[in-house]
Amino acid sequence: MSFELTKSYLEDLSHAIERQDVQSVKLLTEAIHPADIAEILDRLGEYEANFVYGVLPEEVAAETLTHLDEDVLERVLEDLSAEQIADYVDILETDDAADVIAELPDDQQAEVISQLEDKSHSSDISDLLGYEEDSAGGLMAKEFIAVNINWPVNRCVIHMRKQAQDIDKVYSIYVIDDNSELKGTLSLKSMLFASPNSPISEIYMDGVISVEADASNEEVAKIMEKYDLVVLPVVDDKNRLIGRITIDDVIDVIKEEAEKDYQMASGLSDKVESHDSVWSMSKARLPWLLIGMVGGVLGAEVIAKYESQIQLKPELAYFIPLVAAMGGNVGVQSSAIVVQGLANNSIVFRGILGRIGKETLVALFNGLICASVIFGYNFIVGNEQSLAWTVSLALFSVIIFAAIAGTFIPLVLDKYKIDPALATGPFITTVNDVLGLFIYFLIGTIMYGI
Amino acid sequence: MSFELTKSYLEDLSHAIERQDVQSVKLLTEAIHPADIAEILDRLGEYEANFVYGVLPEEVAAETLTHLDEDVLERVLEDLSAEQIADYVDILETDDAADVIAELPDDQQAEVISQLEDKSHSSDISDLLGYEEDSAGGLMAKEFIAVNINWPVNRCVIHMRKQAQDIDKVYSIYVIDDNSELKGTLSLKSMLFASPNSPISEIYMDGVISVEADASNEEVAKIMEKYDLVVLPVVDDKNRLIGRITIDDVIDVIKEEAEKDYQMASGLSDKVESHDSVWSMSKARLPWLLIGMVGGVLGAEVIAKYESQIQLKPELAYFIPLVAAMGGNVGVQSSAIVVQGLANNSIVFRGILGRIGKETLVALFNGLICASVIFGYNFIVGNEQSLAWTVSLALFSVIIFAAIAGTFIPLVLDKYKIDPALATGPFITTVNDVLGLFIYFLIGTIMYGI
Repeated sequence: MSFELTKSYLEDLSHAIERQDVQSVKLLTEAIHPADIAEILDRLGEYEANFVYGVLPEEVAAETLTHLDEDVLERVLEDLSAEQIADYVDILETDDAADVIAELPDDQQAEVISQLEDKSHSSDISDLLGYEEDSAGGLMAKEFIAVNINWPVNRCVIHMRKQAQDIDKVYSIYVIDDNSELKGTLSLKSMLFASPNSPISEIYMDGVISVEADASNEEVAKIMEKYDLVVLPVVDDKNRLIGRITIDDVIDVIKEEAEKDYQMASGLSDKVESHDSVWSMSKARLPWLLIGMVGGVLGAEVIAKYESQIQLKPELAYFIPLVAAMGGNVGVQSSAIVVQGLANNSIVFRGILGRIGKETLVALFNGLICASVIFGYNFIVGNEQSLAWTVSLALFSVIIFAAIAGTFIPLVLDKYKIDPALATGPFITTVNDVLGLFIYFLIGTIMYGI
Repeated sequence: MSFELTKSYLEDLSHAIERQDVQSVKLLTEAIHPADIAEILDRLGEYEANFVYGVLPEEVAAETLTHLDEDVLERVLEDLSAEQIADYVDILETDDAADVIAELPDDQQAEVISQLEDKSHSSDISDLLGYEEDSAGGLMAKEFIAVNINWPVNRCVIHMRKQAQDIDKVYSIYVIDDNSELKGTLSLKSMLFASPNSPISEIYMDGVISVEADASNEEVAKIMEKYDLVVLPVVDDKNRLIGRITIDDVIDVIKEEAEKDYQMASGLSDKVESHDSVWSMSKARLPWLLIGMVGGVLGAEVIAKYESQIQLKPELAYFIPLVAAMGGNVGVQSSAIVVQGLANNSIVFRGILGRIGKETLVALFNGLICASVIFGYNFIVGNEQSLAWTVSLALFSVIIFAAIAGTFIPLVLDKYKIDPALATGPFITTVNDVLGLFIYFLIGTIMYGI
């Protein structure tokens, strides 16, 4: 059952492909789960991947499509005719089928859909393609089991037998009325216990959490997470059942949300992956770098104002990087906690003032420790007392200011409906760099009396 | 169905509690989902939350426990007697029940378990409490439907009717042999189609992905994500079926993994939440701050070496923060992409050299743009040519070095099985700060000929 992708396995496979040895490739890929096949294809070159894909049994080939990374999927599809794609799509569930077709160029999409054998399948897929990719409609599948509230249990079983042909796994049995309006769910338990003639209306569970088709991805994820749902029914604007979303399709949404914050904190303005082009990689990074440059230039202006003091006491320059860096570090730490708290909804209703008060306490403590450590360092290496006091006092002040700014800025952004994650990463670092330098030289001129 | 927690709702509730108006509180909390009740309790003070909890119907009160944040759960449990807790735990599924009991002090755990009415429930829970919290055993529930491979279909139905009493939702029907060994699954579809006397052995699906009870949380998450599973059976070391894990319990694990990287990048060494104590907040941040200080001190040493040059040309000091900050920013950007690529397994087998080559290209491009921009700035404000060339050349070099270091360090850490996320955040910033200063002054002394 469990397959581990090793270097030697890949070498064996590559050699077999080189020899054009179809039989060996078939043997090597036999009884391997489509998710693992997808991983193998991801590790092979284009020619090799297409060779392996070509020898897969139809069912496995179809399922493999749903597990491939976007770029590999594109390459594999390019190598297939519309007929072949249609054969595979015929096997897939509607949501996966729509996802595969969405990857094709527009003209080929129509061609594949027209070639599908099962006409109700093809109309379901066309339907799904009409929804925004990032909405409940774009996530849902058309395969679900629904029974009429007015039927008796035995009619349900007959009906389910018919519907179940198309459905791999039954997560919920939905109860609808004559207008297809969603009324509730029927548990397998109550079905197993009920007598064949009892009406559904007497044994079904009233009320079920659902979303409308135009709800956003994030909304779907939030609802499924909050209510611990494995499957979520989707309705149209008249509350008619039109599909269902299973949680496995939502996990990617949840992960992407978490990763978005990480990328912001790392100074990436776009989702970039390691296989993206050099140009899109540059584009995602330049905005933050330029903001960082603005900060650096402002820092230069601050330092220029104190040029004569530096000429007099050049040792003041020693600790410029320390003070600037610490301000940035503390600011990012504080803002990251706020951003995560906001994402998890754990600080919405609690007061801004309380939050800042607490951050200040933490900063007082950390500031005291850091200031003492650097004072100790300056004492040991024998630097002037004035310098030691300047650095420690500045560091202490900077840590407190940076913590307050790091807490305050994301909260304010959030209040004005701007993504608070913007406040992490280079932005807060830059603000604190400049602020830190200013404080440092101010204290320096006072301590030295220059 | 959908409930929105508003300020005015909370005010109404608070007033009703103040008046000790049980009837109004009951009305206000009627027909609200336990997940929403949990959110309400989270927003109330201790006394208020316990008041509301006290008027909830037994079923709702029990389910609410499974949705509460750890700190609120603790407060609510403190207010309850062992008998009351036992009443609620009797209603919960085994995995949720074990999670609630695990929050109690040791002596109370035994008391609650002894008070449970359903003895098989209580032995299941004790069993679950024996597993590591962060393992498959700690995640699984004991409720599952298993049928014997040697039975005919009609016997299965009778058996399922019996088992289904304890089970809220049936996700999979597992097939086991006489030794309880897991053989495969039975789809509802094949059950609906089979004649009552056909043996299970002829209609079941052979082979099913499972984990052993001592597998880690992360392993469970990886498997369920990769194979798009909604439910995963858990076996003991003899492949005997002992439980099942549903995906909703694994989502937290997946999210925490993603958030861990974010926290590392933000310079937090521990999982901290906004409601943690000042002390644990300080503790999570100090390590990185102290590392940052080491960097700052090293930076000071570098600058000290160039003291006479600064005294001669104090304008060299202007751009210390710019060069240092840009090195840090670029390094974090590069390492973040590598860390995410490693987490998503998308760069394991691809070469390190290729990765570094691509990063260098991106850096060449971004470096050229940033260097030109800052050259333009220096030209416009009328700074000396030597300074303009120094800053631009240094910036260009620093961006390239930082990109290479940011790519190389996490890849090397990963190779030696150290969490590559360590390389993001203050660590890489610090390395690049020092490197940047060194390059800057080296170029400066050459350009100025001092």
